[in-house]
Amino acid sequence: MASFDVLGDGTITSVPGIWAAGVHCGIKQSDALDLALIYSEVDAAAAATFTRNKVFSPTITVNRENLKSPTHRVIVDNSGNANTCTGERGLQDARRMAAWAAEAMGVKAEQVFVCSTGVIGRFLPMDCVARGIRQAAEMILRNPQSTIHNPIEGGHLAARAIMTTDTFPKEVAVQTEVGGKTVTVGGIAKGAGMIAPNMGTMHAFVATDCAIAKPVLKSMLRDSVQRSFNSITVDGDTSTSDTVIVLANGLAGNRPIENDGRSYNQFKVALDYVTQELAKMIARDGEGASHFITVVVKGAMTEEEAHRCGLTIANSPLVKTAVFGRDPNWGRIAAAAGRAGVRLRAEKMNVWLGEVQVMKNGGAAEFDFQRAQAVFDQKDITLTVDLGIGKARWTVWTCDFTYDYVKINAEYTT
Amino acid sequence: MASFDVLGDGTITSVPGIWAAGVHCGIKQSDALDLALIYSEVDAAAAATFTRNKVFSPTITVNRENLKSPTHRVIVDNSGNANTCTGERGLQDARRMAAWAAEAMGVKAEQVFVCSTGVIGRFLPMDCVARGIRQAAEMILRNPQSTIHNPIEGGHLAARAIMTTDTFPKEVAVQTEVGGKTVTVGGIAKGAGMIAPNMGTMHAFVATDCAIAKPVLKSMLRDSVQRSFNSITVDGDTSTSDTVIVLANGLAGNRPIENDGRSYNQFKVALDYVTQELAKMIARDGEGASHFITVVVKGAMTEEEAHRCGLTIANSPLVKTAVFGRDPNWGRIAAAAGRAGVRLRAEKMNVWLGEVQVMKNGGAAEFDFQRAQAVFDQKDITLTVDLGIGKARWTVWTCDFTYDYVKINAEYTT
Repeated sequence: MASFDVLGDGTITSVPGIWAAGVHCGIKQSDALDLALIYSEVDAAAAATFTRNKVFSPTITVNRENLKSPTHRVIVDNSGNANTCTGERGLQDARRMAAWAAEAMGVKAEQVFVCSTGVIGRFLPMDCVARGIRQAAEMILRNPQSTIHNPIEGGHLAARAIMTTDTFPKEVAVQTEVGGKTVTVGGIAKGAGMIAPNMGTMHAFVATDCAIAKPVLKSMLRDSVQRSFNSITVDGDTSTSDTVIVLANGLAGNRPIENDGRSYNQFKVALDYVTQELAKMIARDGEGASHFITVVVKGAMTEEEAHRCGLTIANSPLVKTAVFGRDPNWGRIAAAAGRAGVRLRAEKMNVWLGEVQVMKNGGAAEFDFQRAQAVFDQKDITLTVDLGIGKARWTVWTCDFTYDYVKINAEYTT
Repeated sequence: MASFDVLGDGTITSVPGIWAAGVHCGIKQSDALDLALIYSEVDAAAAATFTRNKVFSPTITVNRENLKSPTHRVIVDNSGNANTCTGERGLQDARRMAAWAAEAMGVKAEQVFVCSTGVIGRFLPMDCVARGIRQAAEMILRNPQSTIHNPIEGGHLAARAIMTTDTFPKEVAVQTEVGGKTVTVGGIAKGAGMIAPNMGTMHAFVATDCAIAKPVLKSMLRDSVQRSFNSITVDGDTSTSDTVIVLANGLAGNRPIENDGRSYNQFKVALDYVTQELAKMIARDGEGASHFITVVVKGAMTEEEAHRCGLTIANSPLVKTAVFGRDPNWGRIAAAAGRAGVRLRAEKMNVWLGEVQVMKNGGAAEFDFQRAQAVFDQKDITLTVDLGIGKARWTVWTCDFTYDYVKINAEYTT
């Protein structure tokens, strides 16, 4: 059985050879951090997944091009402005941002990934971006007195610098053994609104010192994203800039993972933990949420159907408001499953709120209303749905729908 | 050009030979009306569309069977209880409800449609249902002193008796000429929550005295529902009991419509107006809504893509909260279009709030913020999106997302 240790205070810079910084350069009106730089001391293999939204940021265009480079060194990410719907000038800005980060860190431009998150339809303030890159690079490279010289602290700053409506930074790191060597996997993420099933739906950056061949990393990341970032939803909206990037710099010195097998599985379990924890933090931080909801769908014909059914339930405003209202209204869960477009047998369906069975063989189960309502006393609740037809299962994470979701999104100003 | 007159105070009983009643029989805790009966004096052709939700009410099973009957006479509908997830007993209850209505009105059981709306997972109180059917039948048949003897009043009562969280009854009637004869089309509907694109997503009953062959009525209704009830959305949730039924009793004496042609088109325009008006009333009555939103998608490759794109925009919580917040945040509209899975050219996209163009050729248009925000001073607003790729268009109706939507659905008790 593959296993790993979760590192206390872990972040992306828990990974050997990974440095980071976060600065305020003026993109945001407030004095919050708004630009992050992540740097690998040595060449790293990279894999990435991007938004499937057809209206996408030019940063996605640049990153798709740069992903062809055999090695990578830098990720630069600003918050406060999504550089989206900005046309040719936006594309030039994204290229300049990558070029400046490359120059500041002494790497090639194609070794840089560039990301932007925030308001759509405004041009990046490039003077701020230039200043921010310069400051962040100095923190990493030239100032041994800086707090950044504690690598952990740099990861924390970067995690804060990529936040928009997030209420807390999202960071995690684990250690495991691969081929007799200690391997670390750490990551940071941002996202609280515009979270939906199509692709990562936010920014997440993961680093590891594991040695792994680029094609293997690519297919592994795709599956890992499916089970993590593509299994969370806050509001069904897919962002235009969603990006997941993993950098693997090989400093652990393990024999490079080049195909399936024991090392592959060992590393995959650690990677899945990191991506799922980051994904769950995003769902937990869902705008205005009062409950974190785990939706388990079992008894499905295929994993794909269980996944789709779980997302349909997790996206249902009626289910989400029922949880907020502490209402064990299981009919809304059954109705959402019924419209998910998956195979099921209504007369074999069972639903549980926490441990309390509320729907049994297609009808109302006999249950104690007080006990069912008490499930909502916990901030973390699990809804389990058995479709009664097959053996496949999937888990999806979301949050409830509250007055504050409406407030946050009605008052967010263009 | 096909034309028609809208009748003042019009309802389903504006149609010659159509009678209705609405009574309180105790299904609802309150003293609100909760059972409606609609009756055609003579045999009528019928067409119907039902929910595609796989968890559906046994009333749907009964109606699918009865739809095979060549003629129909009665619709019986209760509010306050959906008779869904009620298993074999629920199916028996639905059959009994139809049989009782048939007996009370002196028609065959297979000439009856039976509908239920309200809470899921509870058995119908059949003693109440029996009493309600008896009372409603008496009002229609045996009591010339009753207000119901004014046919219009009976339609109004029926429209109120099918309401659940609706804040106003939904009724409309029009008159047109078909083959030299005056033809009336009238309808009533209910629905405010659980409104979504898959099928009718509520109950709507339409009657006409037009003579029309059953297969022609069937295909005409399918297209009409696509352009009306399948083009509204409140929250993306599809109910388990959604039903649209049209009864055509032929009393207008026109030569029966048996295929495409002038009479077909004349009648179709009137039918479309009735179904669209009822559909728009449902969207307007969306739970907690403060704005009624018309989404026009043009420049699409196909009508199907324009339709899908419109629904994706109309279902986006970010778009709906932006309208509530009076925020001309067009990026959310563009992002929703981008994830709709339809062909578009981002660099050719244009978006208007009312008359104010806010996105031009894929980027921000120069517009006056005050003027854009003033669009939200109207309760009725139109969002127009040009996908810049083809010539197809579609119109979708929805409402905004407010604190009150959350309140209504969090506090609705099982």
